[in-house]
Amino acid sequence: TQNYRITLLPGDGIGPEIMAVAVDVLKVVGKKFDIEFAFQEALIGGAAIDATGEPLPAATLDTCRNSDSVLLAAIGGYKWDTLPSHQRPEAGLLGLRAGLGLFANLRPAQILPQLIDASTLKREVVEGVDIMVVRELTGGIYFGKPKGIFETETGEKRGLNTMVYSESEIERIGRVAFETARKRRGKLCSVDKANVLEVSQLWRDRITKLSAEYPDVELSHLYVDNAAMQLVRAPKQFDTIVTGNLFGDILSDAAAMLTGSIGMLPSASLGASGPGVYEPVHGSAPDIAGQDKANPLAQVLSAAMMLRYGLNQPQAADSIEKAVLQVLAQGDRTGDIMSPGMNLLGCQAMGNSLIQAL
Amino acid sequence: TQNYRITLLPGDGIGPEIMAVAVDVLKVVGKKFDIEFAFQEALIGGAAIDATGEPLPAATLDTCRNSDSVLLAAIGGYKWDTLPSHQRPEAGLLGLRAGLGLFANLRPAQILPQLIDASTLKREVVEGVDIMVVRELTGGIYFGKPKGIFETETGEKRGLNTMVYSESEIERIGRVAFETARKRRGKLCSVDKANVLEVSQLWRDRITKLSAEYPDVELSHLYVDNAAMQLVRAPKQFDTIVTGNLFGDILSDAAAMLTGSIGMLPSASLGASGPGVYEPVHGSAPDIAGQDKANPLAQVLSAAMMLRYGLNQPQAADSIEKAVLQVLAQGDRTGDIMSPGMNLLGCQAMGNSLIQAL
Ligand SMILES: CC(C)[C@H](C(=O)O)[C@@H](O)C(=O)O
Ligand SMILES: CC(C)[C@H](C(=O)O)[C@@H](O)C(=O)O
Repeated sequence: TQNYRITLLPGDGIGPEIMAVAVDVLKVVGKKFDIEFAFQEALIGGAAIDATGEPLPAATLDTCRNSDSVLLAAIGGYKWDTLPSHQRPEAGLLGLRAGLGLFANLRPAQILPQLIDASTLKREVVEGVDIMVVRELTGGIYFGKPKGIFETETGEKRGLNTMVYSESEIERIGRVAFETARKRRGKLCSVDKANVLEVSQLWRDRITKLSAEYPDVELSHLYVDNAAMQLVRAPKQFDTIVTGNLFGDILSDAAAMLTGSIGMLPSASLGASGPGVYEPVHGSAPDIAGQDKANPLAQVLSAAMMLRYGLNQPQAADSIEKAVLQVLAQGDRTGDIMSPGMNLLGCQAMGNSLIQAL
Repeated sequence: TQNYRITLLPGDGIGPEIMAVAVDVLKVVGKKFDIEFAFQEALIGGAAIDATGEPLPAATLDTCRNSDSVLLAAIGGYKWDTLPSHQRPEAGLLGLRAGLGLFANLRPAQILPQLIDASTLKREVVEGVDIMVVRELTGGIYFGKPKGIFETETGEKRGLNTMVYSESEIERIGRVAFETARKRRGKLCSVDKANVLEVSQLWRDRITKLSAEYPDVELSHLYVDNAAMQLVRAPKQFDTIVTGNLFGDILSDAAAMLTGSIGMLPSASLGASGPGVYEPVHGSAPDIAGQDKANPLAQVLSAAMMLRYGLNQPQAADSIEKAVLQVLAQGDRTGDIMSPGMNLLGCQAMGNSLIQAL
C-alpha cells in the first residue's frame, strides 16, 4: 500500500461541493490501485478570512508543506471584494504560490470531441486543439517591488507595480517548458512584449539561449498582442506556450475559453521540490454555490493531474480520465456543458455517475 | 474651400501601397466636398532608420505638429528586428505617440455583415458585434520608469519595467471613454487586474468615482483575464471598453480578430489638442509587401476616421464608409477577405473600385 498525505483546500463558492466529489473519486481509485490517502482539510480564501481574519492562516501553509500534494478547489466571492487587497481571498492564493515556491503553472486547454459544440468557435477551427500553457507563477508583476499607491508632491496619487524577471527565474520556467514541449509535440512558443519591454527582451534572450540545449524542440516567439490574436485565428498552430505570470494569466484563460467548457479544465502548479497544488481553471462561481449545479469534472481531472504529476501514479490518473470520458460518452452533462438530448445531472449525481464508471 | 495640412507617414512593408490608395480616395472626396488637402510625406519606422539612422527623425515630429492630422500606414519588419530597442521602428511609433501627447487610442472592432463568414467564431456569436476599445496610449508600462536591464551583485541580469498610472492620467482617459460610450450604446466596461495590482486598484477607484459624472452611462468592471475570456465567449455583451496601455494592446487585438478581417479595421489616436494620428490596426505585413496584394480598406477607413474625428467633416467620412460598403456589396475582395464566388482584386484595383463607387 502506498500512503499519501493530501491537503484539501475547498475554499469558497462551489469549492466544497466539487471537492467532495473529487475526494469520493480518489477514495474509489485508491481502493482499486492500493493507494491510501490521508486527507487533511485546511482553510484558505474567504472561508479562512471568515474563520480567522486572514486569507492564508499559517496553519494552512504548514499543513500544505507537510503533505505530498495539495488539492485546491476555488477561492473568492462578492462578499470579500471590498476588503483591502492584502486581506482578500486572492492574497491567500498568491501567498500559497509564493510560500510553496510554485513557479510553474501548467494549464492545458484541450478540446474534447464530445464537447466540441460548446465552443463559440467553428468546429474546423478548434477540432483537435491541444495547448499547454506553461505560466511563470511566482515572479513578474504579481510579486515585483516597488509596488503600491503613493502620493506625489502635488497630492495626487500614483499606483505602481513592477514587472521584473531575473535570468535564473526565466531559465527555471524555460526548462520546465522545454521539457513539457519535448513530451508533447515538440513545439514551444514563447510569448513576450520584447518590442516594447526590457523585461521581455531579457526573457526572449534567455529563452533563445536555452533552446540550444533542446535541439529537438522547435522554438518560436510571439508578441503577446499577436498571441492573443493567433489563439482566436488559428489555435491549432500551438502546442506548448511559455510566458510570464501576467501574460500567462490572460492567455491561459483565453485558450481555456476556446474549448467552450472551462468547467472541464484542470491545472497544476509545481515547484522545484515539495508538494504541488492542483486546481480547476474555473473560479468559485458564487452565483451557483450550494445549489448542486456545479460541474465537478475539472476538480476531478485536477485530482488526476495530482496523481500523474505529484504522486507518480499514472495508472490511477488514467483510470480517472477514462471515467470522465465515459460519463461524457454516455451523455451525462452538468448545466454548463448541457446540450439537447443529453442527461442533465447535478454535481453530486455527476459524482455518482463517475463512481459507477470506475 | 476648406484647407487641411495632412502629414502622411507611409512607413514600412505594405504601408506605401495602402497609403497611395487612401490618398487617391481623399483627393476624390476632397473634390466632392470642397476640401483641399495639402499632403506632406515624412519618414518613420524602418524607412526612417534606413534613411537617417533614427526611427523618428526630429523633422518628422515637427511636420506632424504643424499639420491638422496625421495619416499613418504601418511600421516594422524583419529587417530591423535585431536592432536594440530604442533604435527599432517601434520606438518611432512610441515616440510619435508621446511626442504628440496621443493619450487616447480608439480601436473599433465591428463585424460587417458582408464579411461575417471570415470570423473563426460562429455566426450567432459574432453577428452584430460592435465594440470600441478605448486604450490609454502614453502611460502605463509602455513608458513607466525605472526600466531597463540591470546587473545584480551576483552578476545576474534582471529585466524590469514599471506599470504606473496617476489619478489625472486615469481621469483623462476615463473621460474620453465615458464620452465615447455616451455617443454609443451607453455601456462602459473598465478592464484592470485590481485583484492583484495596486496600479489597477487606483484605476478602478478613479473610474468608479468618475462615473458619478456620467449617470447615463452604465459602468462595469472586469479583470483582464476574464475580459479575454468574455471576448471569446460572448463578445456581444460589450459596447465600449476602457483600459490601460498594455491590456488595451492585447484586448484590442483579440477583439479585432473576432471580426476575422483585421485588414478592415481603422484606429484613431488622439490628444487633448493638436493633430491626431489615424492608422490601420493591422501591421506592415512584410511578407506580402510590394506585391499589390494588400487590403487598403483599413487605411481608407482610417482616412474616414480622420475626416470624422480630426477634421470635423462627417459627410466626407460617411461617403468613404459608404463606398467601402458598396465595393464589398458588389463582391470586391482582396486576398485576406476572399471567399468563393467573390472578385479577387489587388490593392490598386480595390482602390480604383472605391473611386468608381465614390
Ligand atoms: C485569482 C487570481 C489572483 C488568479 C491570478 O491572477 O493568478 C487567477 O486569475 C488565476 O489565474 O489563477
Ligand atoms: C508596434 C507596437 C509597439 C504597438 C503597441 O504595442 O502599441 C502595436 O502593437 C499597437 O498596438 O499599436
